[in-house]
Amino acid sequence: MKFKQSSLTVGELATGHGLSVPLFHIAGKDSQAPKVFIQANVHGAEVQGNAVIFQLMKRLEQMDVQGDVTILPLANPLGINQKSGEFTLGRFDPITGVNWNREYLDHQIDVASWYQRHCELDDKALIAAYRAELIASCDAHLNQQWGVTTGKRLAVTLQQLAHQADIVIDLHTGPKSCKHMYCPEYDVSSAPLFSIAYTLVIPNEFGGAMDEAAFCPWWQLTEHMNAVGRDFQVPVAAFTLELGSQELIDLEDALTDAHGILAYLSHRGVVADKVEPAQMPRYGCYLKDYKKYHAPTAGLVEYKARLGHILYSGETLANVLRLDRFGTNEELTELVLNQDCVPILHFASASVYQGTELYKVMTNLFELYTS
Amino acid sequence: MKFKQSSLTVGELATGHGLSVPLFHIAGKDSQAPKVFIQANVHGAEVQGNAVIFQLMKRLEQMDVQGDVTILPLANPLGINQKSGEFTLGRFDPITGVNWNREYLDHQIDVASWYQRHCELDDKALIAAYRAELIASCDAHLNQQWGVTTGKRLAVTLQQLAHQADIVIDLHTGPKSCKHMYCPEYDVSSAPLFSIAYTLVIPNEFGGAMDEAAFCPWWQLTEHMNAVGRDFQVPVAAFTLELGSQELIDLEDALTDAHGILAYLSHRGVVADKVEPAQMPRYGCYLKDYKKYHAPTAGLVEYKARLGHILYSGETLANVLRLDRFGTNEELTELVLNQDCVPILHFASASVYQGTELYKVMTNLFELYTS
Amino acid sequence: MKFKQSSLTVGELATGHGLSVPLFHIAGKDSQAPKVFIQANVHGAEVQGNAVIFQLMKRLEQMDVQGDVTILPLANPLGINQKSGEFTLGRFDPITGVNWNREYLDHQIDVASWYQRHCELDDKALIAAYRAELIASCDAHLNQQWGVTTGKRLAVTLQQLAHQADIVIDLHTGPKSCKHMYCPEYDVSSAPLFSIAYTLVIPNEFGGAMDEAAFCPWWQLTEHMNAVGRDFQVPVAAFTLELGSQELIDLEDALTDAHGILAYLSHRGVVADKVEPAQMPRYGCYLKDYKKYHAPTAGLVEYKARLGHILYSGETLANVLRLDRFGTNEELTELVLNQDCVPILHFASASVYQGTELYKVMTNLFELYTS
Amino acid sequence: MKFKQSSLTVGELATGHGLSVPLFHIAGKDSQAPKVFIQANVHGAEVQGNAVIFQLMKRLEQMDVQGDVTILPLANPLGINQKSGEFTLGRFDPITGVNWNREYLDHQIDVASWYQRHCELDDKALIAAYRAELIASCDAHLNQQWGVTTGKRLAVTLQQLAHQADIVIDLHTGPKSCKHMYCPEYDVSSAPLFSIAYTLVIPNEFGGAMDEAAFCPWWQLTEHMNAVGRDFQVPVAAFTLELGSQELIDLEDALTDAHGILAYLSHRGVVADKVEPAQMPRYGCYLKDYKKYHAPTAGLVEYKARLGHILYSGETLANVLRLDRFGTNEELTELVLNQDCVPILHFASASVYQGTELYKVMTNLFELYTS
Repeated sequence: MKFKQSSLTVGELATGHGLSVPLFHIAGKDSQAPKVFIQANVHGAEVQGNAVIFQLMKRLEQMDVQGDVTILPLANPLGINQKSGEFTLGRFDPITGVNWNREYLDHQIDVASWYQRHCELDDKALIAAYRAELIASCDAHLNQQWGVTTGKRLAVTLQQLAHQADIVIDLHTGPKSCKHMYCPEYDVSSAPLFSIAYTLVIPNEFGGAMDEAAFCPWWQLTEHMNAVGRDFQVPVAAFTLELGSQELIDLEDALTDAHGILAYLSHRGVVADKVEPAQMPRYGCYLKDYKKYHAPTAGLVEYKARLGHILYSGETLANVLRLDRFGTNEELTELVLNQDCVPILHFASASVYQGTELYKVMTNLFELYTS
Repeated sequence: MKFKQSSLTVGELATGHGLSVPLFHIAGKDSQAPKVFIQANVHGAEVQGNAVIFQLMKRLEQMDVQGDVTILPLANPLGINQKSGEFTLGRFDPITGVNWNREYLDHQIDVASWYQRHCELDDKALIAAYRAELIASCDAHLNQQWGVTTGKRLAVTLQQLAHQADIVIDLHTGPKSCKHMYCPEYDVSSAPLFSIAYTLVIPNEFGGAMDEAAFCPWWQLTEHMNAVGRDFQVPVAAFTLELGSQELIDLEDALTDAHGILAYLSHRGVVADKVEPAQMPRYGCYLKDYKKYHAPTAGLVEYKARLGHILYSGETLANVLRLDRFGTNEELTELVLNQDCVPILHFASASVYQGTELYKVMTNLFELYTS
Repeated sequence: MKFKQSSLTVGELATGHGLSVPLFHIAGKDSQAPKVFIQANVHGAEVQGNAVIFQLMKRLEQMDVQGDVTILPLANPLGINQKSGEFTLGRFDPITGVNWNREYLDHQIDVASWYQRHCELDDKALIAAYRAELIASCDAHLNQQWGVTTGKRLAVTLQQLAHQADIVIDLHTGPKSCKHMYCPEYDVSSAPLFSIAYTLVIPNEFGGAMDEAAFCPWWQLTEHMNAVGRDFQVPVAAFTLELGSQELIDLEDALTDAHGILAYLSHRGVVADKVEPAQMPRYGCYLKDYKKYHAPTAGLVEYKARLGHILYSGETLANVLRLDRFGTNEELTELVLNQDCVPILHFASASVYQGTELYKVMTNLFELYTS
Repeated sequence: MKFKQSSLTVGELATGHGLSVPLFHIAGKDSQAPKVFIQANVHGAEVQGNAVIFQLMKRLEQMDVQGDVTILPLANPLGINQKSGEFTLGRFDPITGVNWNREYLDHQIDVASWYQRHCELDDKALIAAYRAELIASCDAHLNQQWGVTTGKRLAVTLQQLAHQADIVIDLHTGPKSCKHMYCPEYDVSSAPLFSIAYTLVIPNEFGGAMDEAAFCPWWQLTEHMNAVGRDFQVPVAAFTLELGSQELIDLEDALTDAHGILAYLSHRGVVADKVEPAQMPRYGCYLKDYKKYHAPTAGLVEYKARLGHILYSGETLANVLRLDRFGTNEELTELVLNQDCVPILHFASASVYQGTELYKVMTNLFELYTS
């Protein structure tokens, strides 16, 4: 089975050129199997997800695909094509500064009222009705009288597609980063089905990102239904995978990550083929324990802590070199933390202002086990 | 009386150079007179506030100053010095994209609990205690274990100074803009004391800007005290003045605006000299009625609507030129609104993506009268 | 007669989207009439040329067109679509910093040797052969083994088209600027055929810009032919028109400038209709007398000198405001020149580093008369 | 012996803050020993030279220093502090796009005429006189009537200091790069005194960079003197060292490179201590054989060729991934060269426009031997 390619228009450049995203689709054999939506490269410099998609599509074309699969690589053409010097300036809208991954829509549906109007539906019909509601809400937002921003148009157009799926996977990378993933609290047992060692366990609330945009309205509905006594489970799963460092394409590593995604899809029955997640220890960390360490002083930074490895309290995180203080005791400052952690990512540049987010580290990690 | 100059350090550049802001102070004669804090140029391209400060300081040095006056021009050296091409890229942190004017601290003080502990104080002592609380909260934020971002360090350092004042005035400009100001709902009667025709009446809640950072905690405390039956009025006033267009210095116009600020300071007794606000019609608009109009299509824009003048429903707001559609009916599109409004500002560039915020317009205006 | 639209591909973005330029063509009635090439917006923020093209094409479609006319608005899609903050960062390649208008090809043809091989041709055949040589040289450059840069691909692709024309007009604007034009020394008598008050008379040598790329090889050939005793006149005319300020679309003013271009085209017989240049005094200035005045000190700048009007020695060019020097004799510095000049353009931003190019002024102007 | 620190002012920011560079100096014991000037970080992202300077100064303070040593780390504060997104945008002036390392002054001294006026001086006096001429020329340039650009002020201020030295070393890095150095043809025998495997042998002419600015006027004088029959050798040596990749601080590797520089200084008698260059094969390549390979197509790039290792004709240089062409034979393109080479550096980003300079490779290498 081959992917069919079409094109999704997400905006328009000043010259009038349309901003289009290549869209690939395979119709699964089983309309009851979960539908999948995967996108990559919403942040312009985070290109490796495209390589993972490449490997994933190559494998899927050889497999027994049960559920519909929709894939959008290169999802943010404006961000990807925005260079500034030798690097891609693709993390935020160059005009407004708004992070491209904080533009998704919070539908703010009054679930109590909505459920009251739909409580007589069975689960399947209820899911269909709520899905239609979410899609219509995206549509209304895109067509409002006063228009929408460039970033909202992109995000909500993508979100509208994502709402049609049961499984939403958003592929990102860190700046300089080890692999890790975001998983909502209610679905933490799914994290070990991927092949990623570190999982950030995030609250079930909306914070602006695609994964949250996909699962939050469903989690809110589920909470309410459970509260009023109806047994119901969140029918949509959504994850953000951070597949290493930005500005890097590695096809071999992409194959590993494609395999990891396939393991989850296999477990969920999207593909009939059996694919197992990798054997590895896995660790979770609550978002409140995911700490941003800001440069206490400006200077040149030698990043010392190995990403994805435990750094014990008192060990060197980084050195800050200050040539303007040569010959004083501030010429070279060792930065240390006073608690154990696992550094997950660090800043991309080796020179920093005071306050630059130098490292993100996980603290209070706990082991995650396959259920 | 002459201003005394000192210097406020707000950060450090990668090379180690300190980011310092010139700070000017006059000690007023009357310690009971309101204290004033004025800053300008937190957004790097919005330079005209510095010219207003120049004229204002020149006048104040000739006047009978009763209350302490603290003035910080050039408040964001990192933003001001950040060029990109021929323009100042000073609206957001170039690393993170975060708007410099959304970094102020929301203290989130539990006012009920705080008041319970301080309810026996008389008004003056209570104000002093609450002020100390706010300043200490800034201090704690700046010195937290994991550090703070570059933008937070700047903003909270400024905020800490602002909390020492009874009157806080933050000088901004729009991109291409007529003069207007932001005034909180509870203090709308103060708007006509300035000499600005258009006032945005904003909710009393915190949205991240300096004016809100200054008045919100006081409004929250006041609300609570009133609710529990104590007569108390918000003791702090805070305004954002938008003094025309960015990337423009006009000393003569600055003198007009300095006079407008002096009228308010005179009314409040900061200066003993009598200065009257200008005679002019003044209009208010609630924030909910301040509409952002986004480019429905990309293209080259001829801005037609005159800023600060009424635009009737159906009149031309702007023309969008599309050379790539030459010879079709999309070559030149007239943009119109279907309701009356006053265009306040428009985008700075003449070529836009689809979704660019083209105009901000006030709708449902109402006249403001001097009380 | 209507323009026919096609599309010229000038490169490819990272996402794979082609960079295309809309190309408009009218075939003239008389194959002996001069052929015209007009482009606009090679610098991304200099959009007004597109509006002029719009008005020009509208008029030409009503006229009796004798010579082929080829028009490329929006000639640099990468530059036009590159925003940084609220402005277009379109003056140089965002990756390399190279000015988009310095990328044209210097063919460095050995004219002596070339002429020796072609001296037996009559003028018409000789022109055709040399034109073919130039076009082939562009072609070879675009297809060289090691590839060409993004900027060279754009420029040489445009240049290749321009070489097919007898008249080349490149539409630019200044930052904040009055109208002026560049005209090569050998063709200075053509300047008054346009309707532009100020003309920079440039040497006949190559400096990297389109106009020079178009006329230089012909001037070199002509020089050589004249030197060896053959009567020959430079058969190609090329001009750069600077039509006011960047980031501005003004359709009415565009009509005036379209009329000015039509006057030249009419004089040259490209259109059979009679169009006269405007009556106005016109002044020339040699490039060596076109002075760049750099900010002697950093600060905030109030631009005082009126563009396009004489500024006498000792009159105020600009004021530099330095709030950090408030209360000293450096708080406000008046910048003056010690010779008469006509300020032609000034920097776009109101805050400058030391050394920023503040003004360009013409000195030693001389009157130009219609021959 | 300890370095003495002072500060060199190289410009002024819009806020009025001075741009200062820390300047370190040791006065050598022997006024006849060669004087040394070393600078680093003229390109803002190329920080590793500062780490090398740190290690070098630490060693020199322990050594027997004979010749004066002047060292400027962090030489371009404007470039170093200019961030755009997470990276340093420090390769060119953000306003003009001009490469910071192409701003040095070409004195264009008429050496024939100058020599005629000074031919009676003995070598030492002649050198002193010419040196004074160069320094005065810098001074005149910095103080010309119409001012100088920001970049020229920086460069010529540095150059003026460099002219006082006999040995000039400019520390740079590539984007992603192996170590290599630039050495002028006349001084190629000096290259093996450093510990760098690859040497670009550059013509003796001026191209705008610091090394050329330092040696060219001396080489021109020498050429002339030799031509008129006076025995004379170029008395100034100047090199650019490219010490690996940008945006990286590595103190251990910096120690290695500091040792390499000390070997040259030891050989030249700047330090009395004996330091030997590393044993390693060394290769030269003429600038004309240093090829820039431009992306023939846009896309995502997997850089495959190992830097600093031979790549045989037909081996994979890089892969270009095109998701928009998935399922076609253009989905993944292997880039190969048809000649042997050593890839020296590649572009920093993994997504490229058509025409982006992908790799620089040395071809036609030849072995360099220690004389």
